[in-house]
Parts: sequence; structure tokens; C-alpha cells
Amino acid sequence: MPDILHRVGIKASSPKDTYKALTTCEGLAAWWTDNTKGESKVRGVLKFRFGERGGFDMKVLELKPAKRVLWQVIDGPEEWIGTKVSFDLKQDGDYTIVLFKHQGWKEPVEFMHHCSSKWGIFLMSLKSLLETGKGAPYPNDVKLDNWN
Amino acid sequence: MPDILHRVGIKASSPKDTYKALTTCEGLAAWWTDNTKGESKVRGVLKFRFGERGGFDMKVLELKPAKRVLWQVIDGPEEWIGTKVSFDLKQDGDYTIVLFKHQGWKEPVEFMHHCSSKWGIFLMSLKSLLETGKGAPYPNDVKLDNWN
Repeated sequence: MPDILHRVGIKASSPKDTYKALTTCEGLAAWWTDNTKGESKVRGVLKFRFGERGGFDMKVLELKPAKRVLWQVIDGPEEWIGTKVSFDLKQDGDYTIVLFKHQGWKEPVEFMHHCSSKWGIFLMSLKSLLETGKGAPYPNDVKLDNWN
Repeated sequence: MPDILHRVGIKASSPKDTYKALTTCEGLAAWWTDNTKGESKVRGVLKFRFGERGGFDMKVLELKPAKRVLWQVIDGPEEWIGTKVSFDLKQDGDYTIVLFKHQGWKEPVEFMHHCSSKWGIFLMSLKSLLETGKGAPYPNDVKLDNWN
């Protein structure tokens, strides 16, 4: 089964700060979408919305402070439902390394190609948020293609 | 076997112009690395260099004007050797869509996560080159992590 994989290094940050940006509505709203609601606790649900394009509901499956976040998609585009999104954090020299995986796609459809690139863009927004104090969450995200 | 997938949409361009940026040393040097040499013809070899970090030699396997480019890695990092890189082009409304695949990785190692994100960055450089006339090839590429 094909997966989306990314690796981003964040300078002048710590796994603890990065973890906070992944596990609070305020943090998530500052790099992914400004319309983020819900509860970041195990078995809680986070709701991410992107205007008319809809969004995703994620059930929080795992939270290991400064180490790991795991969500499962419970609502959203058909191809996403049941897939899992994880962020693993570690320190490597001056960098906090984020290893990202979006796993469980059934087929490597064209939409998956889009989502892979778009996750890369949002992870660069996370990096920017932590390095400069300013991310580029939806609706101010970097546009990629005709699917946005 | 895990693959790297991306989808980028280029506005105000055509598959023909995008194809040119993928099949001439001048075009490739303007979005991937300024040190690009070799022959973009079937069975020709393209050499991409990134300063002290080394680079990749790609054998050109397939060239379909305005449609498709396929390379195979014949020299470079061990994990890359034998893998295949393809770009499929099509028009979709105002956009030239690039479907990118880097296939044949043996294992989803950490380096593959890095390469996935870095390909995304370089494809955004290709988009920028065609939309604005200016890409961000190495050594002026957007930096991602401690592996650069």
C-alpha cells in the first residue's frame, strides 16, 4: 500500500515546541488551517475545515509528548477515510526532525499525488511557524494546482 | 514497494513549455540544479551535481514530447540506483498538470522521506520558473532540513 512520506527539519525549535504546534488547536490553526476545532486528547476528535472544499475529522489515537502524534481520519474525502497520519519527532543537532507519514491509501490515485505535494507545503508552513513565528495556514496557504 | 508521488499545476504555461524545462540542460538548470550536463535524448545520460553533496546520473529511457519523460538513476546515492523518475504532463483547464513519480525504492528509509519533501520543493521551483521566469535551483534552493 502506498504511503505519503516527508521529512522536515526545524531550526531553533525543540521537539517540545513542535509537539505543541501539532497538539493544540491554536498551534494547528497557525500552520494547517485557521479553522481548526476539537480536542487534542486520546480518543478526542479534531476538525479541520478548508472553506467550501470541506475538510477532515481526525480521531486522536496516540500522543507521546515531544515524540509522536497519531491521528486516524474518520470523516473527509472518501480516499482519506480510515487512513492514518503520524508525526514522529526527534532532535538531530540543531534541528527538530519531523518524520511525517500518511498511510493506508488504497490506491496511488491522482488525488494522492496532490495530497503528497500539499502535505509538503503545509509542513514547510509548520517549519516557518516555528522558525519565524509565522506559518501559512489555509486560506493563506501556498497554492499548488487547480485542486488548490 | 513505496513510491514518491507529487502533483503540481502550472498556470500560464503549456505541456510543451513544461516539457522543454524537463528535457534541456538549460531548462533543468533553471529549476533543479545549476550544474546540469549531458544529453537529453533516449539512451543519453544527464548528470546533475549539487556541490559537495554529489549528485545523480540519469539515463533517459523515454521521451514523448509534451507528454512524458522517464529517467533511470545509474549513479548516485545507493538508495537511488536503479530507481526511476517520471514526469507525465497534461492540460487541465488553465493548468499544465505534472504528475511526478520516483519509483523503485526498496525501503521507506528516512532518506526517502527527505527526498519526497525535497522533490516537492524542486517541483515548486519548476512551477515558479514557468509561471514567473524564475526558479530556485541548487544552490539557491529552499532548504528543508539538516540534509539540506
